[in-house]
Amino acid sequence: MRVLVTGAGGYIGSVLIDALAAQGRLGMRRLSAIAAVDRQLAAWPQGVEAVQGDLSSDAVRGAIAAFRPDTVFHLAAVPGGAAEADYAQGRRVNLDATLDLFEILVDARTPDTPAPTVVYASTIAVYGTDLPDPVTPDTPLNPPLTYGSHKLACEILLADFTRRGLLDGRSVRLPGIVARPRSPSGLTSAFMSDLLHALAAGESFVCPVGPTATAWWMSARRCAQNLMQAAVMDVAQAGPARAWPLPVLRLSIEEVVRTLATLYGNDRTRLVRYAPQPAVEAVFGRYPNLDDRASRAFGLRDDGTAEQMVRRALGERLA
Amino acid sequence: MRVLVTGAGGYIGSVLIDALAAQGRLGMRRLSAIAAVDRQLAAWPQGVEAVQGDLSSDAVRGAIAAFRPDTVFHLAAVPGGAAEADYAQGRRVNLDATLDLFEILVDARTPDTPAPTVVYASTIAVYGTDLPDPVTPDTPLNPPLTYGSHKLACEILLADFTRRGLLDGRSVRLPGIVARPRSPSGLTSAFMSDLLHALAAGESFVCPVGPTATAWWMSARRCAQNLMQAAVMDVAQAGPARAWPLPVLRLSIEEVVRTLATLYGNDRTRLVRYAPQPAVEAVFGRYPNLDDRASRAFGLRDDGTAEQMVRRALGERLA
Repeated sequence: MRVLVTGAGGYIGSVLIDALAAQGRLGMRRLSAIAAVDRQLAAWPQGVEAVQGDLSSDAVRGAIAAFRPDTVFHLAAVPGGAAEADYAQGRRVNLDATLDLFEILVDARTPDTPAPTVVYASTIAVYGTDLPDPVTPDTPLNPPLTYGSHKLACEILLADFTRRGLLDGRSVRLPGIVARPRSPSGLTSAFMSDLLHALAAGESFVCPVGPTATAWWMSARRCAQNLMQAAVMDVAQAGPARAWPLPVLRLSIEEVVRTLATLYGNDRTRLVRYAPQPAVEAVFGRYPNLDDRASRAFGLRDDGTAEQMVRRALGERLA
Repeated sequence: MRVLVTGAGGYIGSVLIDALAAQGRLGMRRLSAIAAVDRQLAAWPQGVEAVQGDLSSDAVRGAIAAFRPDTVFHLAAVPGGAAEADYAQGRRVNLDATLDLFEILVDARTPDTPAPTVVYASTIAVYGTDLPDPVTPDTPLNPPLTYGSHKLACEILLADFTRRGLLDGRSVRLPGIVARPRSPSGLTSAFMSDLLHALAAGESFVCPVGPTATAWWMSARRCAQNLMQAAVMDVAQAGPARAWPLPVLRLSIEEVVRTLATLYGNDRTRLVRYAPQPAVEAVFGRYPNLDDRASRAFGLRDDGTAEQMVRRALGERLA
């Protein structure tokens, strides 16, 4: 396998690179990973060729074309809050460069090789607000942010490359992934990770949504496993739609707080002060149930329980 | 009103320009229309400022920005068959230049004016094949051609500009529009128009779909009226989805042939020889019923009857 990971220096990317490298060490399949990143990572696992730069740059595009990957994980993106604030940057990376990447992969393919598999990290932000309960594969998609609009457009474009037989695309819609580093990520959903970090560290936390706000949660480790599963799942008979929501744990904030209290001590519940912001709550606090049976049928999985999700998310911090 | 029509030299565009000019002559509202076209039209109605060129050209972009339209009909497109054959051209016009146009309109707007109204000519090619009966607003969209994929992506992008308050977008999905000129249009659905022309002229016709194949039909005149209605319909309370299928007559080929025979003589039915092509029939011969109640509620209309549709489509040829 010749694996390309874009956005490999990001949070999910680095967890995925580690998981891919571990798979390689286990001798399951020989991996050569290339990483196109826009910032330096301190140390890459052995066997990873790191390419630093922007997907729009000729150097990175040339490196990808020369590498000729057979499996691609496209994670590089301007996150939701940042893309909403800087439209031009969002278009350039989340729409134009993504479509350019698809074209580069098509052009680089040699006639004797199968269509490259492209796992595209889409987002539950494609769904919109005022969702029906449950959300199903037939739920109309009305993204409430430019980020989600560009992601949905690329889902459609990737499905078209798949229909043409040029790529084998699999878009997976990522829920709120925890626990991202506490540094500003540009993601409006960053509060979900910050809540975990704060309570684990015994610090106070001001929550921008109320205690009964419900969100869709997943640990980064489970997310990485799902991305790898998406690359190998057999979707040949799946029909023209090529996008699947990752199965999620739907949890209220108070359920997550209670889980943290179970793991770290009951005093943790008193650390949270609720100051709901209507705009944040509208987008991130009203997620209903998700009919994810189609995704589960392809081996995609949630974290199992809230406790397992938190344990995986904060793995290094728990004894 | 300062009205911009792109693709004004095309078939639907020229019918729309005439209808807009007639509206202006009736003194309903003063129109100044500008037309960005990529080929010369012999004569434009009075009051129309014609700009010749490609939407990608700086000259046309500058002219649009300087004109600062308040109402835009965006019809310019590489048609379905041509876009399928020339991917790069389809991306350039149907995706990139369309999104660029939206941005030009936003940038050209002065702070004291409302968001420009943009009527975007989308297509029923966004739906896909193997459709449920009836097609409803909840029917998942799986475009079977790159053309439809790019159109759907632009519907989503226009809805996002609308959500941001930068444009007032209204995407309308056009069915098979008849009767296009018999010259090659690049549209795979051109056979629908060719059938009308051939039988009206008493010529034989080889039909690429069978007699029971069902399609969605509309005359160009009705289409132009619908486009004008789309610009003025009050959709402020319509929710985040900003795309409507035009109400259609769902007719089988044999129903259309029978209608032509009623108008031109019974011998016309013998002029048709059926040689169904599976690829054409899959995309253009399996249209089920359409639940278009939401569109009708906004004043969008079909042609009424098959005979009215044919009469409008071939208006000049009928005594």
